[in-house]
Amino acid sequence: MKTHKIGVAIVGLGYWGPNLVRNFNKLSDIKLEYGCDLLESNIKRAKHDFPQIKYTTNYNEILQDPYVQAISIATPLSTHFDLAKKALLSDKHIIVEKPFTKTTDEAKELIKLAKKKKLKVMVGHTFVYSEAVKKLKTLIDAEKLGKLLYYDSTRINLGQLRKDADVIWDLAVHDFAILNYLIKDRPIIIKTVSSSPLRNKSDELAHIFITYKNGFTAHIYVSWLSPIKIRTILIGGKKKMVLYDDIQPSEKIRIYDKGITIPNEDVTPFNPLYRSGDILIPKIKSNEALFNELSHFILCIKNDIKPITDGYDGLKVISMLEASDASMKTGKEIQIEF
Amino acid sequence: MKTHKIGVAIVGLGYWGPNLVRNFNKLSDIKLEYGCDLLESNIKRAKHDFPQIKYTTNYNEILQDPYVQAISIATPLSTHFDLAKKALLSDKHIIVEKPFTKTTDEAKELIKLAKKKKLKVMVGHTFVYSEAVKKLKTLIDAEKLGKLLYYDSTRINLGQLRKDADVIWDLAVHDFAILNYLIKDRPIIIKTVSSSPLRNKSDELAHIFITYKNGFTAHIYVSWLSPIKIRTILIGGKKKMVLYDDIQPSEKIRIYDKGITIPNEDVTPFNPLYRSGDILIPKIKSNEALFNELSHFILCIKNDIKPITDGYDGLKVISMLEASDASMKTGKEIQIEF
Amino acid sequence: MKTHKIGVAIVGLGYWGPNLVRNFNKLSDIKLEYGCDLLESNIKRAKHDFPQIKYTTNYNEILQDPYVQAISIATPLSTHFDLAKKALLSDKHIIVEKPFTKTTDEAKELIKLAKKKKLKVMVGHTFVYSEAVKKLKTLIDAEKLGKLLYYDSTRINLGQLRKDADVIWDLAVHDFAILNYLIKDRPIIIKTVSSSPLRNKSDELAHIFITYKNGFTAHIYVSWLSPIKIRTILIGGKKKMVLYDDIQPSEKIRIYDKGITIPNEDVTPFNPLYRSGDILIPKIKSNEALFNELSHFILCIKNDIKPITDGYDGLKVISMLEASDASMKTGKEIQIEF
Amino acid sequence: MKTHKIGVAIVGLGYWGPNLVRNFNKLSDIKLEYGCDLLESNIKRAKHDFPQIKYTTNYNEILQDPYVQAISIATPLSTHFDLAKKALLSDKHIIVEKPFTKTTDEAKELIKLAKKKKLKVMVGHTFVYSEAVKKLKTLIDAEKLGKLLYYDSTRINLGQLRKDADVIWDLAVHDFAILNYLIKDRPIIIKTVSSSPLRNKSDELAHIFITYKNGFTAHIYVSWLSPIKIRTILIGGKKKMVLYDDIQPSEKIRIYDKGITIPNEDVTPFNPLYRSGDILIPKIKSNEALFNELSHFILCIKNDIKPITDGYDGLKVISMLEASDASMKTGKEIQIEF
Repeated sequence: MKTHKIGVAIVGLGYWGPNLVRNFNKLSDIKLEYGCDLLESNIKRAKHDFPQIKYTTNYNEILQDPYVQAISIATPLSTHFDLAKKALLSDKHIIVEKPFTKTTDEAKELIKLAKKKKLKVMVGHTFVYSEAVKKLKTLIDAEKLGKLLYYDSTRINLGQLRKDADVIWDLAVHDFAILNYLIKDRPIIIKTVSSSPLRNKSDELAHIFITYKNGFTAHIYVSWLSPIKIRTILIGGKKKMVLYDDIQPSEKIRIYDKGITIPNEDVTPFNPLYRSGDILIPKIKSNEALFNELSHFILCIKNDIKPITDGYDGLKVISMLEASDASMKTGKEIQIEF
Repeated sequence: MKTHKIGVAIVGLGYWGPNLVRNFNKLSDIKLEYGCDLLESNIKRAKHDFPQIKYTTNYNEILQDPYVQAISIATPLSTHFDLAKKALLSDKHIIVEKPFTKTTDEAKELIKLAKKKKLKVMVGHTFVYSEAVKKLKTLIDAEKLGKLLYYDSTRINLGQLRKDADVIWDLAVHDFAILNYLIKDRPIIIKTVSSSPLRNKSDELAHIFITYKNGFTAHIYVSWLSPIKIRTILIGGKKKMVLYDDIQPSEKIRIYDKGITIPNEDVTPFNPLYRSGDILIPKIKSNEALFNELSHFILCIKNDIKPITDGYDGLKVISMLEASDASMKTGKEIQIEF
Repeated sequence: MKTHKIGVAIVGLGYWGPNLVRNFNKLSDIKLEYGCDLLESNIKRAKHDFPQIKYTTNYNEILQDPYVQAISIATPLSTHFDLAKKALLSDKHIIVEKPFTKTTDEAKELIKLAKKKKLKVMVGHTFVYSEAVKKLKTLIDAEKLGKLLYYDSTRINLGQLRKDADVIWDLAVHDFAILNYLIKDRPIIIKTVSSSPLRNKSDELAHIFITYKNGFTAHIYVSWLSPIKIRTILIGGKKKMVLYDDIQPSEKIRIYDKGITIPNEDVTPFNPLYRSGDILIPKIKSNEALFNELSHFILCIKNDIKPITDGYDGLKVISMLEASDASMKTGKEIQIEF
Repeated sequence: MKTHKIGVAIVGLGYWGPNLVRNFNKLSDIKLEYGCDLLESNIKRAKHDFPQIKYTTNYNEILQDPYVQAISIATPLSTHFDLAKKALLSDKHIIVEKPFTKTTDEAKELIKLAKKKKLKVMVGHTFVYSEAVKKLKTLIDAEKLGKLLYYDSTRINLGQLRKDADVIWDLAVHDFAILNYLIKDRPIIIKTVSSSPLRNKSDELAHIFITYKNGFTAHIYVSWLSPIKIRTILIGGKKKMVLYDDIQPSEKIRIYDKGITIPNEDVTPFNPLYRSGDILIPKIKSNEALFNELSHFILCIKNDIKPITDGYDGLKVISMLEASDASMKTGKEIQIEF
């Protein structure tokens, strides 16, 4: 005898889990049933802040509870596949934190299993649900920018160094997800230049270059070694150019009516025309991206809709991460396969 | 019967030349003798602003005038070598705008000739004479930053597209000159990733990666296709990190007491220490860099001193530009030779 | 049989109350016993977010509960006096939101009653507990700024218009509290210039000028009609000058080594000396001010300490608000009495 | 036998004069005849930079030269009246630096004399000719801002202290000129609050409040004692609000689609509507204001047009300065008479 509210369990209550609890708690059409973590200290902290939920260290308890219809997985990457597979086998919808899985093979197996079981798999590519990125999508789809010239992202700050992941898996994952959402064309080649000046083991700063089928190129700069935090994406189009600065509290997007036209490249003197008009800072809603994301997940379950960032989207991102790694190791351009 | 004041002629009165005239005009120990250009319109404009100088379209007139001891060459790159060589053969000291020459061979020949003639050759790497870059040099030489981790420059804006040069010869030339001034170690390898989304002929945006003998790396991003003008150099050191933002009118340099220490990489949990202290914005003098540069040139002539940015420094920059070009064409890492 | 943990009740769960609940909830040495509000909708929302507390619409229930030792009052201003008096009469310590009371008479009565009952009265002048204002206090007390020349505050944004309070009671109250904390000298005269261009009933923008006994002056600009949010305080001293920008996420304070010295005013030409040195942005802790405030309140109760912002401090602020009102109405300078 | 080009002389070659020479020199329809100053050192410097002009220390030489048709007066304020009067009596058009004269009586006499002589009198209210202020004028005249609510200017920096003028005559003069240009309504009352914390002789910081006939109010804050340079004017309108930040190199004007509407002030709960839409940064031309100003002066002479900032405009500004002074001394509101 199920309730009408969708029962949700959250696995992993470390750094990100509490944000999931807080945002799921705002949704009216779900019931937060469980929080789960192996560490008692994480459970204790969560219980203090959100005492209304049941807590357990035993994942099986959640899998066996018929009131739980969906599981949110926010554990370390190495455990994603195993926890997600068990959830699907127990007939639970899942939303998995990014990166989706350690390998493309794992991602493919989860996609296949979910398809067979008719369950939703969503990946927590949160930026895709931010109001700013949605605005970028609207601008591009409405062809306000004209033919796209380049995507240039700078995502740098001090730390947090990790031992289990390099800076690409930690930070570039956001850009891969944003690119897959914004750019319809297919990415085909990745080239990475990286270094680790601090500890010489895993990479602390990296530049990733992506070439698309139609020639469009993207550049992503990620670093754990910058004294200043920068989160900017510059997208150049033939008609307009856009700066998205995620650090800005309210003025996140600036649309520049700027560009260059070359009437005839063969005349002398060479005389390109520069256009420099108004700048527009559109009003962006202030909804929290994570709240948008979780609402979408629940909507997809209730109305049987394919999530925007479904398992296949997660797979694409993993394949780009794998290609980046391969390029880093070999110094060569790598084909993206997915 | 020469006067005590050093006679100077300026060749090339187009975009940059008038700045040379204006700054030479502020020096008390020289006498501006000539302005020279092939275009009457350039001469007319210069004569209107600086009527106190003689003007000519005939370079030989300058070469033959015994009152001219030094020639400032600000003509198109393709003419540098020829004009410079003639000047040296006529026993004139020269200061040549950057880039010094079209090829390293040209640079080497000029250096050799000047040595034989005991004349000064200086290259107009103006940023080296800016108060901000001088401050960076002082900080690095006094080991305030500790071991250097990386150099990261962003030099982007809209235009000015050129037909005779790509974005690297136009913009990265500044960073090569700054790097040669700041970094004592030897650059050995250059790798370039570039594209030309707008016109598909010569490159409009490029990323250049330089590896030094001791492993230090530099990244330079130059573009003619950005709606915003950015001129930032970030230098990370083990002790301190520095941001140099040349767009700022007075607060050009920020010194961050920030960093990361890894006491022991093999303990679990991995626990790097983050240091985030005060930020210092040191007072920078407001002298114009070009004035400093020309003063230095005259000082070198008067006191027979080797210029900071002499011909050999110009040669190093040209060799880096050549290596960048080769990497662009081949997609490979190129050894820097000089 | 009391527990060792101090029992706390929060009255008023509207706009500010939830922040009090969230921060009291972080304190380990208290027990949050009750939330109280007259509106069921406010209680419902609070119960959803913080289900671990008892809720009531009956204030007497709290007054009579022996486990409640302290009451936090965050209700509309008009109710402060009555609720606070009842709490004191029931032997509860109180912390009252700013402004403390409607009138100085009310404030005086509460102070007297608390003294008699030996209970703590604290006023929620939150800014005094912010790390940035504490840093200003340290700088001033250590005489780093030298003799103070002026205090200049700009506290403007769009809205929130109120019907029950003008812009001074809404916004200038913060500056009065900060001034009382920072400036040892006694404020003696207030002069206010205000206007209400939008609705012509209560004032929407105002300038308040305060003169201190030793001649020091403060200016405060508050407005509900600015399209941009500004929160800056500029404090000029003979040795150093400080800008405190509360909008900045991390670089809230800038210390300028700037100033003017007049060696001799009677010489001709008049030749003042300008000093323009480094700028220092000191590292400021990121503790939330409200958390600091509530910790201090609990500490004062446990160790029988006088709160920094006690009832007398609240009274001083109310007397300054009354003087501002009187100046607004009469257009004259008003003596501050407290 | 006059040339077709208007002969111009510049009197006063100190701080501002060289800017006049440089900009007059760009005009094609004038001939710069003379520079004049009492100090040989000023003449020497000007002669070095602009050797094409005649120089003299004798003002009469200029007055008697029939080739001089217009005189630009950039000498200390105390000499304006005498020099201007002599110029008019010698049948020369004049452009006088701001402030126009020491007193309104002087201004009136010059206006009367010029009228009789049919000569142009223009006052150098340069800001009125800046592209940014012209843009503000266009916005206001096209009623893009709706009914104006307030004008709020902050014009502060460190120095330059003067002995012969207080901060109002030095800085607020700009705002008076801008207000007279932008606001059609008549200013009737001025109230000033000022202080001089540094030297206690003439005022170093001041707030000026101006009330217009229709109730519109302006506030101007000027200071010589701020460590940061601020040049902002905020204009609130019922439809739109505008920020003009003169420090910005290119983004000087921001138009905010923000505002507040109160549908019914008498309903409970009080529920004003806040509008917060897009921000527009219009493209502003980069012409130098002083060049625009001098072009206009020459145009007025050639085509016999009344200058935008004519003698009567100068008089209005002087009457506002006199009212400010009177309010400073008496602490009272002062009626503006002109």
